[in-house]
Amino acid sequence: MSDKRKPEWAPLNSGSEFASRIVSGENTIVNPMSNRDNKKTARQYELSELVEGVRDSNRTLLSKAITLIESNSEKHFQMGQELLNQLLPLSGASIRIGITGVPGAGKSTFIENFGLSLIEKGHKVAVLAIDPSSCISKGSILGDKTRMEKLSCHPASFIRPSPSAGVLGGVARKTRESIILCEAAGYDTILIETVGVGQSETTVRSMVDFFLLMQIAGAGDELQGIKKGIIELADLIVINKSDGDNIQRAELAKQEFSNALHYIRHATDSWQTKAVLCSALFNDGLDVIWDVVQDFKLATINSGAFKKRRTEQSIQWFESLLAESVLHSFYQSKAVIQLLPELKEKVSQGSLPVALAVSTLISAGSR
Amino acid sequence: MSDKRKPEWAPLNSGSEFASRIVSGENTIVNPMSNRDNKKTARQYELSELVEGVRDSNRTLLSKAITLIESNSEKHFQMGQELLNQLLPLSGASIRIGITGVPGAGKSTFIENFGLSLIEKGHKVAVLAIDPSSCISKGSILGDKTRMEKLSCHPASFIRPSPSAGVLGGVARKTRESIILCEAAGYDTILIETVGVGQSETTVRSMVDFFLLMQIAGAGDELQGIKKGIIELADLIVINKSDGDNIQRAELAKQEFSNALHYIRHATDSWQTKAVLCSALFNDGLDVIWDVVQDFKLATINSGAFKKRRTEQSIQWFESLLAESVLHSFYQSKAVIQLLPELKEKVSQGSLPVALAVSTLISAGSR
Repeated sequence: MSDKRKPEWAPLNSGSEFASRIVSGENTIVNPMSNRDNKKTARQYELSELVEGVRDSNRTLLSKAITLIESNSEKHFQMGQELLNQLLPLSGASIRIGITGVPGAGKSTFIENFGLSLIEKGHKVAVLAIDPSSCISKGSILGDKTRMEKLSCHPASFIRPSPSAGVLGGVARKTRESIILCEAAGYDTILIETVGVGQSETTVRSMVDFFLLMQIAGAGDELQGIKKGIIELADLIVINKSDGDNIQRAELAKQEFSNALHYIRHATDSWQTKAVLCSALFNDGLDVIWDVVQDFKLATINSGAFKKRRTEQSIQWFESLLAESVLHSFYQSKAVIQLLPELKEKVSQGSLPVALAVSTLISAGSR
Repeated sequence: MSDKRKPEWAPLNSGSEFASRIVSGENTIVNPMSNRDNKKTARQYELSELVEGVRDSNRTLLSKAITLIESNSEKHFQMGQELLNQLLPLSGASIRIGITGVPGAGKSTFIENFGLSLIEKGHKVAVLAIDPSSCISKGSILGDKTRMEKLSCHPASFIRPSPSAGVLGGVARKTRESIILCEAAGYDTILIETVGVGQSETTVRSMVDFFLLMQIAGAGDELQGIKKGIIELADLIVINKSDGDNIQRAELAKQEFSNALHYIRHATDSWQTKAVLCSALFNDGLDVIWDVVQDFKLATINSGAFKKRRTEQSIQWFESLLAESVLHSFYQSKAVIQLLPELKEKVSQGSLPVALAVSTLISAGSR
């Protein structure tokens, strides 16, 4: 497709793949609400308009607000932070659920049917994604909505694909801030999907209350392909595709995981990680999973683990973002950009002591 | 012992445990050379005196020079870096060997007898240590010399215990700089010992050419207690205490490690990690180990892997020290010290957006 429209804005130094670009020709499946106003970019909205819009649960304006916080421009950053500042008091009253699993485990089908079943119970469901590998050229911006067509059309749902084309840290910041906006818009259940690539599970774990690991039954060696570390992040292991010929194998896999869980450190204080069966395709076991989430919430709120984790998550996020920003602003300083290559070269040749090169740069950078 | 003498200087904010303090009553086992001049502290030495002293391989002055670079005071830092700058051209011409293994594996006996055998072959051997758990109250400053009495008395050896009471990063910097000083003093074989605590193996691997993992034969489950990650760092696995009744078990362990090595990524390009037997106590197998080191050096110098690793190590060291120093100087700034607690509190209570708290601190810190 050669009709490449310009993004509304793009991150600093980003290439042509920046995610906010719209792939033309596919907008028929985009929820009509979110395009109603598509001649007006986020830039043109007043802060107060966005604040009101999110508060009123207007999906178009929620979408614009997220686009604003996804921007890397300094001007948008200030406006986005002011927006968050005003909406922060309205946030926090949701359950944040992380969902991971290998490609093919059936995460999309699960999220679609699980989300619809929650909406039937009266909930408002937002779906966010962290996909470090996503980029617009692979179609990920519309991919999630394509995959979850029924859910995305429902007025009580909000689906936002992964912010893309950036380091995982930046993507994580944007997702965390999107959670706040969705909560302020009244979504009480936030589902955050990720694929098991590199550090993304740990990243998602660091921003959710409850973490769900989705597995499918294989050839009896369920535990082989999966890192012990991932199981230690999970509050619930769901064996999906437990249907038809597969039921017996799924039952075996569940048994195997249940056994393994005896020997593994649990992810959450005052909660025993369990394994359950489910057939997302046939809507089987979804209620059981929701019951588990409710039990989890009750147990951890009573024990204090729920609040403690959220506080710790905020502090960790603050500290890691602070360190990242300090380093970023140092490496952006003119003197550092000028000196760094030469000093690095001398250090690598062994002609300048490392600590001396460092102290030279530090004093240059603080001047 | 209540006679606590003052250290020559101590790191910023360090407690009473700073390692350069001398434990009185045990100085009979300190090499007499290094105390000949003990009324004169490093502070009183001229830079030129230290440079000459290290060049002349004077162990007392080498020791003082290392004490200088171990200091955290700003004044000593400048002098220490100037010292390194002048001696750097003389460094680099050694083989740097890291040695790790669980407590009880026999590292000290190995280093003592291996070191003595190298001295017999005409080499000059320096022994440094990284022990994140060390502190003077446990006697570690003299501990190494006590453990390696014969080697420490030999004029062709130099033993320096782990710099202590600091974060691993700081300890690592000091050890890296000590390597440079020892090389400038003519030591052609640098042995760096560590115990397997936390990140210390990775740290030592990042500063040596050759990494030796010392193991002993257990009850047939040699591979159980050892992290796969550690094997992947090793260029040689030595099964120690292969003597007497233990020979058969050691042989089995060697076999087991050799098998495991087929499935494991090797630490060094153009080098196949091997497993060998040794009885350090009976001086058995030490020559074979030295032959392996020579083969390794030849193979990696020919392939370019030797030089490539050293260059990469310098750059990595530079980059990590730079990041550490940038953050350190940021957190030391007056405005940051003043603002940080309040902002952190607000963030943890959820009353201030994280990114706004961060940007507030960044602009305060750069003012």
